[in-house]
Amino acid sequence: MKYITLLGATGSIGLQTLDVIRQHQDLFTVHALAFGKNIAKAIPLIKEFKPKKIVVQDWETLQRLEMEYATSEILVGNEGMIEVSMDCETDILVNAVLGSVGLDATLRAIEANKTIAIANKETLVTAGHLVMEKARKHQVHLLPIDSEHSAIFQCLQGENNKEINRLILTASGGSFRDKTRAELEYVTLEDALQHPNWSMGAKVTIDSATMMNKGLEVIEAHWLFGVSYQAIDVILHKESIVHSMVEFDDKSIMAQLGTTDMRTPIQYALTYPSRLPLPQTNSLDLIEIGKLHFEEMKFERFPCLKMAYEAGKTGGTMPTVLNAANEAAVSLFLQKKISFLQIEKLVENELTQHYVIDHPELEAIQVIDKETRKRVVSSVK
Amino acid sequence: MKYITLLGATGSIGLQTLDVIRQHQDLFTVHALAFGKNIAKAIPLIKEFKPKKIVVQDWETLQRLEMEYATSEILVGNEGMIEVSMDCETDILVNAVLGSVGLDATLRAIEANKTIAIANKETLVTAGHLVMEKARKHQVHLLPIDSEHSAIFQCLQGENNKEINRLILTASGGSFRDKTRAELEYVTLEDALQHPNWSMGAKVTIDSATMMNKGLEVIEAHWLFGVSYQAIDVILHKESIVHSMVEFDDKSIMAQLGTTDMRTPIQYALTYPSRLPLPQTNSLDLIEIGKLHFEEMKFERFPCLKMAYEAGKTGGTMPTVLNAANEAAVSLFLQKKISFLQIEKLVENELTQHYVIDHPELEAIQVIDKETRKRVVSSVK
Repeated sequence: MKYITLLGATGSIGLQTLDVIRQHQDLFTVHALAFGKNIAKAIPLIKEFKPKKIVVQDWETLQRLEMEYATSEILVGNEGMIEVSMDCETDILVNAVLGSVGLDATLRAIEANKTIAIANKETLVTAGHLVMEKARKHQVHLLPIDSEHSAIFQCLQGENNKEINRLILTASGGSFRDKTRAELEYVTLEDALQHPNWSMGAKVTIDSATMMNKGLEVIEAHWLFGVSYQAIDVILHKESIVHSMVEFDDKSIMAQLGTTDMRTPIQYALTYPSRLPLPQTNSLDLIEIGKLHFEEMKFERFPCLKMAYEAGKTGGTMPTVLNAANEAAVSLFLQKKISFLQIEKLVENELTQHYVIDHPELEAIQVIDKETRKRVVSSVK
Repeated sequence: MKYITLLGATGSIGLQTLDVIRQHQDLFTVHALAFGKNIAKAIPLIKEFKPKKIVVQDWETLQRLEMEYATSEILVGNEGMIEVSMDCETDILVNAVLGSVGLDATLRAIEANKTIAIANKETLVTAGHLVMEKARKHQVHLLPIDSEHSAIFQCLQGENNKEINRLILTASGGSFRDKTRAELEYVTLEDALQHPNWSMGAKVTIDSATMMNKGLEVIEAHWLFGVSYQAIDVILHKESIVHSMVEFDDKSIMAQLGTTDMRTPIQYALTYPSRLPLPQTNSLDLIEIGKLHFEEMKFERFPCLKMAYEAGKTGGTMPTVLNAANEAAVSLFLQKKISFLQIEKLVENELTQHYVIDHPELEAIQVIDKETRKRVVSSVK
């Protein structure tokens, strides 16, 4: 039996993780669940999975939860997440929180030699150098849950990372892939939230439309697989069937394909290096799909992707600024305070102004993260 | 340095194997070359690679070769192939002969614990049970060179064969993929020899047009990977870019992609489990290709494929009859003695008449192989 601590239980990845666990109750037990404030969503999960420990975002949520459900130990905030992540009963930490709130807990879980299943992009984007260094030191497995990184990770099984020629990340193109730059002037929040292939949270859906999501994935891939930015390509593939590819030195390309059901990569992270049946997930039917399309990714059409590559290559605190500015800008867009194209402008402003710190420690990253968010928000008021 | 014995040196796979060796002379040396009668093709290869031993098909060829080139030891026929294959100086035996002439040598090389790189279909189709049993007993690696089996073999690296849900072999559809059954009545030998994607020998090109090639590959895949016929699918994929796929129990599909350059799978067999640069081979450009198509494989359109599945499921000497009848019929077609559609009819006749021997030994296989060929040839006269 593997004991799982899940950060971000009520989010899209969190719920699908619980569904995988539900299908394999003989193998997995939920040790702890962490969520934000969404008590209505959390309570049925708590009742079903009966975690020993629960973490909520703040004291108010704790008090509301205690009134409704009082059998588990309830903890609060970052300290709570750290405690359950390091817990000696935790075997696998699933980091599926949104934004950078899971970073501290992840670093501490690595120190405590937990296996880390990571769906949270910010952890690697803002602190890839710290996370990978610690993972190497503690010989901890970092198992990607994101479909693209899981695909690459699967392609690399039985292979030697030194024989990689390039990584090829596929991108669906998001909600606005068929629109020109001019047409993007007038798109609405409602338009942006319609992703053609994947059902995801609002933040990731907007990031897909700006292509910042792919940019963050490029930076993640750089850290996870130790591949230089020059050797990471992005290709438009509107069906989202080929989840990503690896070309090796002999020009052989390995690819991982599947439906857009996140339960496959989630389960692989939980069962790695084995695979288990996943009866509720459909087989990919390539005959029904008929055609797979591949197109060039144009940087001038998707400047966020270009900014991400440049921030990644610059390194240091630059990716933290990229990520924090983007998170703040997307939040403003979700609140309808800015237009779609203002997202990339706000990010660009922050990157242009930032004075990079090389090899930053966690404290510096956290300070710059906060300052950048503040500056983005205040620049709009 | 690895010493290579190459059976079938002047054929398409043989020449490409030598080209791979040419690109890595620091790693590979040709110990022995075996070819049939094509002295004109062989002499430049002998001069370039200076094998210690040469095997030719018959005494006449030996005498002609000795007049032109006398520095290597020259051996003859099946006995010669067996001798060089078992040679203590041979590290890897590349079996790239056409038809079943390499079977004896391959079995003896396995007994001598050589690594076997296998491009010859007949070895596994007719004697899969003997070959695999010996390979297991002697813990010998059987490394496939065929693009489809190499693809599956690559997909299985780092995986557990017990977690395979199905193998998906891709088929280009061959020269006549866009023709109806009615149109096949009038096709010529010249039409049949125009393969849309691959440049191969005449026999394999005709087998691709009848889809018998894919049928033989299904039987090979069954033996190489220990997968039941029910779990082997064939799918039409006219671009020949996805060379084959494996679906695992969790519905994840691994695929291997590449150009139609056989040097990649050949080199992989020689360098396994490592990969080496192959600078003269182009990277696959998916953007230029743009679209990959997948279609259902229709058994009524390609009865040879159906016959192969059935012969495989029946087992025993049935696949030997399938293969021998097909080889004889294709030879008659290449001599313009029968029409294209007569190939499948002749094969069907032999299968219908054959009384199966279960678990045949090599002798029984060889007798049935010869008898079947004779019967097919005499049935036409």
